[in-house]
Amino acid sequence: MGLTAQEAHSKKLAPATDGVLPVFLHRWSSRAFADRPVSTADLKLIFEATRWSASAYNEQPWRFIVGAKGSEAFEKILDSLIGFNKGWAASAPVLILGVTKRTFAHNGTDNSYDFYDLGSAVGQLTLQAAALGMTTHQMAGFERDKARELFSIPADYELGIAVALGYQGEPELLSDEKLRAMESSERQRKSLEELVFSSWGTPAQLG
Amino acid sequence: MGLTAQEAHSKKLAPATDGVLPVFLHRWSSRAFADRPVSTADLKLIFEATRWSASAYNEQPWRFIVGAKGSEAFEKILDSLIGFNKGWAASAPVLILGVTKRTFAHNGTDNSYDFYDLGSAVGQLTLQAAALGMTTHQMAGFERDKARELFSIPADYELGIAVALGYQGEPELLSDEKLRAMESSERQRKSLEELVFSSWGTPAQLG
Repeated sequence: MGLTAQEAHSKKLAPATDGVLPVFLHRWSSRAFADRPVSTADLKLIFEATRWSASAYNEQPWRFIVGAKGSEAFEKILDSLIGFNKGWAASAPVLILGVTKRTFAHNGTDNSYDFYDLGSAVGQLTLQAAALGMTTHQMAGFERDKARELFSIPADYELGIAVALGYQGEPELLSDEKLRAMESSERQRKSLEELVFSSWGTPAQLG
Repeated sequence: MGLTAQEAHSKKLAPATDGVLPVFLHRWSSRAFADRPVSTADLKLIFEATRWSASAYNEQPWRFIVGAKGSEAFEKILDSLIGFNKGWAASAPVLILGVTKRTFAHNGTDNSYDFYDLGSAVGQLTLQAAALGMTTHQMAGFERDKARELFSIPADYELGIAVALGYQGEPELLSDEKLRAMESSERQRKSLEELVFSSWGTPAQLG
């Protein structure tokens, strides 16, 4: 017998650290989704959290196309995914496509922070979903030209990310053994010493 | 008499929405900082939250240089800021430089999500700071070549963002009248109808 969804989730928890918002430690990227729809009320909360993200010149370059399973939008996003992602993401109750505006509205110049700001906004999306007991999985693996054509996305918007959203399912739902194992392997991160410096390569002294 | 820091902060709160994590509604980008240091213990919590962010292939491309006021790192980051930012950011107790690795460690190819992932990680940094009662201000306005030279940052890392971190100060601390006014103006965001679609340009039906 494999692990249950709850057992898998408990293995993904980052080490508890007093004072760190729990949602950072709880959020992780599942690939197994339960057969349970996401309410439109919860979807609204998730995008409400997303839209308060910071952005350069408050441009808010992010735009989202969202589709619940069975909708035309869902089918088009799924159709845009590369084969590997298509396999497991087909079971997600919601798929989202994140795109970002290349230029600033206030003067038409290139916004070199369009991807950066989209990353921040989608980060808030994933955290709010985690706070509501859901899981998300961001995918860079999708065909940008195909998605652009299927949704008639204007040239001024860049294709950014696809996201699967839903409730975590039993790892056993995944037919691929390697993916099943990844559902319950520990989350790995570099240490603070490798990431936070006082001068290049020298770890900062943190309390 | 101008507004106090608390009065200014209360004007920045996004409309309360049941179910949305409060930290999304509380976080905003102040420019007035109180003369109060940030403890190294809190800095550690902030970077602990940051490092659990998601990234493509779990590359974790983000690196940070952090300096408390008076340190060499602080002076170098301050020195790299453009004049407009230098004016107000000099009063922040902590300055941070965020850089991001251009290539994947596992195969050396270009990571086109380096900026996206840095944006997500710095987003978590700003949210954890807000959760600890602090404020942050991200700055794209800094001299990248100068910062690279001052810190000897290798070519494989791209200069991403500068961040001022500290406790919110009284708006009166800002000498520029326009910046003072911005400290207490309402935060503006596009509506969900402008951001979340079921097909391009058509608002999604959210509960």
